[in-house]
Amino acid sequence: MFVLSSPSGAGKTTISRRLLDRDPQIVMSVSATTRPPRPGEKDGVDYHFVDPTEFDLMLNRMELLESAKVFDHYYGTPVEPVEDALEQGLDVLFDIDWQGTQQLAQRKRDDLVSVFILPPSTRELETRLRGRAQDSAAVVAKRMSQASDEISHWAEYDYIVVNDDVDQCLEEVYAILVAERLKRVRRTGLIDFVKALREGY
Amino acid sequence: MFVLSSPSGAGKTTISRRLLDRDPQIVMSVSATTRPPRPGEKDGVDYHFVDPTEFDLMLNRMELLESAKVFDHYYGTPVEPVEDALEQGLDVLFDIDWQGTQQLAQRKRDDLVSVFILPPSTRELETRLRGRAQDSAAVVAKRMSQASDEISHWAEYDYIVVNDDVDQCLEEVYAILVAERLKRVRRTGLIDFVKALREGY
Repeated sequence: MFVLSSPSGAGKTTISRRLLDRDPQIVMSVSATTRPPRPGEKDGVDYHFVDPTEFDLMLNRMELLESAKVFDHYYGTPVEPVEDALEQGLDVLFDIDWQGTQQLAQRKRDDLVSVFILPPSTRELETRLRGRAQDSAAVVAKRMSQASDEISHWAEYDYIVVNDDVDQCLEEVYAILVAERLKRVRRTGLIDFVKALREGY
Repeated sequence: MFVLSSPSGAGKTTISRRLLDRDPQIVMSVSATTRPPRPGEKDGVDYHFVDPTEFDLMLNRMELLESAKVFDHYYGTPVEPVEDALEQGLDVLFDIDWQGTQQLAQRKRDDLVSVFILPPSTRELETRLRGRAQDSAAVVAKRMSQASDEISHWAEYDYIVVNDDVDQCLEEVYAILVAERLKRVRRTGLIDFVKALREGY
């Protein structure tokens, strides 16, 4: 379970897409949300767009691995596709905020790896947030304040990267993914290989 | 402190050299040894070649971070160059065996990262060991037995890589180095940066 968090506008969506393009062994966890789709967003791809009643049902049926309220909308991760992917030996990428990450961490799973992406500067972040033309000035201001709040949780993550340059940032996030897969605790598949190696002497 | 261990012949020396070429932030720890130089080996570069009396003196003066006896020769890591490099903010690469790694691990330093390189097969390892023309058949056989012994300690390491393909193996070892540097616990240098970021709102 590979978590990427960052303030909105720090480039997390680009990094996530490029990571998925690069590595077929990792798949995206698609969150459910009660917020309306933005132009271009596809149901079932970017989010599962659900109404508040449906979201409540999912919560009550314990079908969400984590959930959070951001502004006036709810977000949550359906548990079933995640468990299915993990059982197939795939890694799962989570694009969630600090609230969701805290909830995953509370489950004390040994397969959780969390990465926080910092923007290179406040100015850069503001430029990126203003870049979304469909949002009003009030929404931008609100998002800046939320970004500050999100950043305050940076030290709760396993790894910290700074998105100064998107290519460099991608290389760093990819290195974390590769390295985590090579950890001894995840290399139990090698036990028979090593046994055969030693019997070869 | 970045440790690479492997049985002799698994490609560790090549990986170490290429890692040093690639990344100027990591420097090699040069071991002291009582074994005679092999053809082409340079004193102070490949090893500090010392006589047994000198080695004993270093041990008694506590000038070695770790030491081990392999076959009839002693090997040890002089502590001073390591501490100097670490103080300069550099990483230090150690080409040591399981005995030395255990001694470093006993110091419970939080900056120790250990990687074990496995050969792809016993046959491949034997081919590589026979490739060193200057060694006799008896030495090759002894080294094969030592390789088996070294491999038996693979599960004491933080990361395991298989040297199936040297380029791929280098990428994996490099990813481990990059990722470890991005760990939150090593990112205390970012505290002021994050503070400035948040004050920018």
